[in-house]
Amino acid sequence: MLSNFPVTLEIPVLWGDMDAARHVNNTVYLRWTETGRLAYFHAFTDGQEADFDKTNVILAWHDCKYIFPMTFPDTALIGVKLSEIAEDRFFLETHIFSQKHQRLAAISRQSLVAYDYQALKKAPLPKAWIEGIEKLEGLAG
Amino acid sequence: MLSNFPVTLEIPVLWGDMDAARHVNNTVYLRWTETGRLAYFHAFTDGQEADFDKTNVILAWHDCKYIFPMTFPDTALIGVKLSEIAEDRFFLETHIFSQKHQRLAAISRQSLVAYDYQALKKAPLPKAWIEGIEKLEGLAG
Amino acid sequence: MLSNFPVTLEIPVLWGDMDAARHVNNTVYLRWTETGRLAYFHAFTDGQEADFDKTNVILAWHDCKYIFPMTFPDTALIGVKLSEIAEDRFFLETHIFSQKHQRLAAISRQSLVAYDYQALKKAPLPKAWIEGIEKLEGLAG
Amino acid sequence: MLSNFPVTLEIPVLWGDMDAARHVNNTVYLRWTETGRLAYFHAFTDGQEADFDKTNVILAWHDCKYIFPMTFPDTALIGVKLSEIAEDRFFLETHIFSQKHQRLAAISRQSLVAYDYQALKKAPLPKAWIEGIEKLEGLAG
Repeated sequence: MLSNFPVTLEIPVLWGDMDAARHVNNTVYLRWTETGRLAYFHAFTDGQEADFDKTNVILAWHDCKYIFPMTFPDTALIGVKLSEIAEDRFFLETHIFSQKHQRLAAISRQSLVAYDYQALKKAPLPKAWIEGIEKLEGLAG
Repeated sequence: MLSNFPVTLEIPVLWGDMDAARHVNNTVYLRWTETGRLAYFHAFTDGQEADFDKTNVILAWHDCKYIFPMTFPDTALIGVKLSEIAEDRFFLETHIFSQKHQRLAAISRQSLVAYDYQALKKAPLPKAWIEGIEKLEGLAG
Repeated sequence: MLSNFPVTLEIPVLWGDMDAARHVNNTVYLRWTETGRLAYFHAFTDGQEADFDKTNVILAWHDCKYIFPMTFPDTALIGVKLSEIAEDRFFLETHIFSQKHQRLAAISRQSLVAYDYQALKKAPLPKAWIEGIEKLEGLAG
Repeated sequence: MLSNFPVTLEIPVLWGDMDAARHVNNTVYLRWTETGRLAYFHAFTDGQEADFDKTNVILAWHDCKYIFPMTFPDTALIGVKLSEIAEDRFFLETHIFSQKHQRLAAISRQSLVAYDYQALKKAPLPKAWIEGIEKLEGLAG
């Protein structure tokens, strides 16, 4: 299920991830997605740590479509891939699978912009990021 | 800021809502939105409690656009309104304002479907829900 | 219920604070307690913001006794008071009441030490803190 | 580090587990501990699922001592063992280690009582639980 994704993670469901509907709470999928995004960022920058005091990536928008409700115990299998690079942002697409049920549970898309934490404004996508993403995704020509 | 919303809430930011970027974590806005959705549901059903063993509303999709990063201490001012009723679902739109900065911080839209927890499948929107929503929104003709 | 506490807070229960037992999750009481601790710190330092890059207070230990399980909707009424000042630490005691049920729901105690984030080791309690706490608690002679 | 524990877990740290102090938030250790407790319960009941509509175990009290602050990325190595069985409750002790630093990060103790969800009151510890715990811990004579 994860073979088409350049970045993958496995995260066990915690009991406390479930809410009063006795399913994994909707916000938990986005918390997993957040760590997947960090892993993707780490992968295309060759391990440069996110440094929140300088220029960095910020999440401008995300969505999540819920397909199958996960429960504890289970393990979330998470795949992250590029969806699109635009001039001033790039889009990731994250698929979350239930290992126990071998089913797609949720899909999230995220719009990411570069932000200059010193100038306190949006910055153009650094060239090194674009090259890193293209290399990671096998798009480099 | 909240005058156009039939349902409003005030939720104080907790210190632990902030993450390592020292802003309110993105998932927290959706946790607030979730409680706003419950309040909206409570309002149009005249106080009928959500009962997760029978037919109920479930979240099929949501998104969130981040406009201004909130921090602790602050209070989230939250307004919830109908965006659209379709045949088998309705859409809510939630605006989250920073009280301290008197600014719009985030906007979330949500797609809600009726789900029959006994038949384990999607159900048509109950007529009582549509009438309740129209009354709450002042749309009843 | 809160008349014996120099620092008090009101925090609404969120729907997502409940877990699969359909009660407020145990960790949520400690998240509220954390914000109560910040409010107490803010009160005895006359509003000095916590600055995590310098010397600061850190939580060395806490406990929580669960007396009555809260549910959504409700509001947590939280009182924070000094329990004891020792040479190198002070202890707070936090009482959490259910507004809906007018009952004590949980009691947490916390051991707080001063930590020098530059020297990366425990520091003696600053004299200004001790004086601030004694003034806040009406203990100053 | 985990060789003395009959029940162990590995849980990866998520980025969002960190708070504004840029350490794993104190409540997260107790969320891990909660899942460790479920795993322990599962182990001594030979896999009987927790059923929150009948008699069950509830957490009456817990504490946590913080020894070393974990950060993302890391993996929490968690060991759970019996501390003591009393007439109407038993105590677990949970040790949380940082895999990256190979150090003990936190220790939590928990007091667990049996609760009859139908009679809505505390129940004596079922004989099957005591036997299950003694077998799991190698205490059976």
